[in-house]
Amino acid sequence: METKGRARGCTCSVPGTLILLLIYLAYLALGTGVFWALEGRLEWDSSRRFQRDKWALLRNFTCLDGPALDSLIRGIVQAYKSGALVIGNTSSMARWELVGSFFFSVSTITTIGYGNLSPHTLAARLFCIFFALVGIPLNLVVLNRLGRLMLQGMHRCARRLGGALQDPAKARLLAGCGALLSGLLLFLLLPPLLFSYMEGWNYMEGFYFAFITLSTVGFGDYMIGMDPDRKYPVWYKNVISLWILFGMAWLALIIQLILSLMETPGESCSCYHGGSKED
Amino acid sequence: METKGRARGCTCSVPGTLILLLIYLAYLALGTGVFWALEGRLEWDSSRRFQRDKWALLRNFTCLDGPALDSLIRGIVQAYKSGALVIGNTSSMARWELVGSFFFSVSTITTIGYGNLSPHTLAARLFCIFFALVGIPLNLVVLNRLGRLMLQGMHRCARRLGGALQDPAKARLLAGCGALLSGLLLFLLLPPLLFSYMEGWNYMEGFYFAFITLSTVGFGDYMIGMDPDRKYPVWYKNVISLWILFGMAWLALIIQLILSLMETPGESCSCYHGGSKED
Ligand SMILES: [K+]
Ligand SMILES: [K+]
Repeated sequence: METKGRARGCTCSVPGTLILLLIYLAYLALGTGVFWALEGRLEWDSSRRFQRDKWALLRNFTCLDGPALDSLIRGIVQAYKSGALVIGNTSSMARWELVGSFFFSVSTITTIGYGNLSPHTLAARLFCIFFALVGIPLNLVVLNRLGRLMLQGMHRCARRLGGALQDPAKARLLAGCGALLSGLLLFLLLPPLLFSYMEGWNYMEGFYFAFITLSTVGFGDYMIGMDPDRKYPVWYKNVISLWILFGMAWLALIIQLILSLMETPGESCSCYHGGSKED
Repeated sequence: METKGRARGCTCSVPGTLILLLIYLAYLALGTGVFWALEGRLEWDSSRRFQRDKWALLRNFTCLDGPALDSLIRGIVQAYKSGALVIGNTSSMARWELVGSFFFSVSTITTIGYGNLSPHTLAARLFCIFFALVGIPLNLVVLNRLGRLMLQGMHRCARRLGGALQDPAKARLLAGCGALLSGLLLFLLLPPLLFSYMEGWNYMEGFYFAFITLSTVGFGDYMIGMDPDRKYPVWYKNVISLWILFGMAWLALIIQLILSLMETPGESCSCYHGGSKED
């Protein structure tokens, strides 16, 4: 078995895949343990606090007994999840108005999928699937293009710097580090300041939101433009759209960089090449 | 300007990027209009229904007046969103237990990000960012590997079929169509039957969930294993994990296929090559 695997050389060997899957599972186990340790206790605390608040509520409203309040809470959460609950003045991002629909379209084709809005009719769901099937590749085309433009700019800087420094290798390294740092500043470290001014979040909340958005994870626990009590200027949402586009392109480049660092050691040729060489 | 752009040939021209961005915006506008038309009216209806239900509720509980109920609803939604609300017997997927933490880890590094759980402590958020920064590329490595294994299997089939049919081109086409159809069946058309049996969803709900999950959008409006009143067998979650892994690899291949179909006409060389040729 082993010699056969060795003779094929470049093709994806099954044992290699198994080792990779084991690393993957170990990594997931690490995450499971850490999140469990960090969040489990807090959840228990806040659940106890909620129970205490519930009893305080029951004292205020004497007509509500325990089971009635429980069923009331369950009904409200159900209505909230199904999108039927629309409290007084929710922001236009939280409803299927022009702004909300546009934001939903963006969050679908970028695969961020915040989930503050989701389609409930059969027709909208079917359209959503076709919309994503064409939109996700289209979004990738745009991100690739923007990423290449950024890389081009970096290479141009490196060439100019190489002319000035008389050392192309050093210039490339300098330009690479400069691009990494300026991207980090522009897309991850400065935007939280804007968010803290506009949304009232603290710096870490803004940074967490920025990373979760640009990595396209999009939990939806934080979202911009959702506070109905705040007035957002017109330029704000346009700046955010540009930030999402360029930031996603930049973070995709960084993730590709980490990916190439992960895949290079031990595996210099891909399976596609292995297959074509055999012919 | 134009001749300069032509002379460079393969590099990304700024006008081309502008046209691409216009297409992108037009596509988003299409989505905005359709979702608005399809969902806007339904939302208005269900909002009216909720108002009616609210008045019915007020008649039952005489101690609650309008504003008190509004503030109660707002408080409950706030508690639900912040994760403090834990109703009686929620499923273990909705809490930071072992199963929930594992599922959160999976949903983070696959960038699905359902958002049923999200970290609330500063430490967990920071860890989440680093976990994603390494985990997303690792997940891509695994998906690439699985995608290649699937492609290898398809090529092997094509070669065998080519030997039998004496026509390699036809065999490749047949194998490609076969792989597409079997993937469609295995990852998108059959799983909804399992979901309808296990979760009680109808077929379209299951199909919608399958697509939204495998495309990594992950709105979080539907999720498996979340009904505390249902008993889920042990093999169910393992089968789901395998389905997510292989299904994402398969759908990534399909999206790459659509992407290559979008990028080939008019742009046969990438900007990277253009840059290296100039040197
Ligand atoms: K997502
Ligand atoms: K999501």
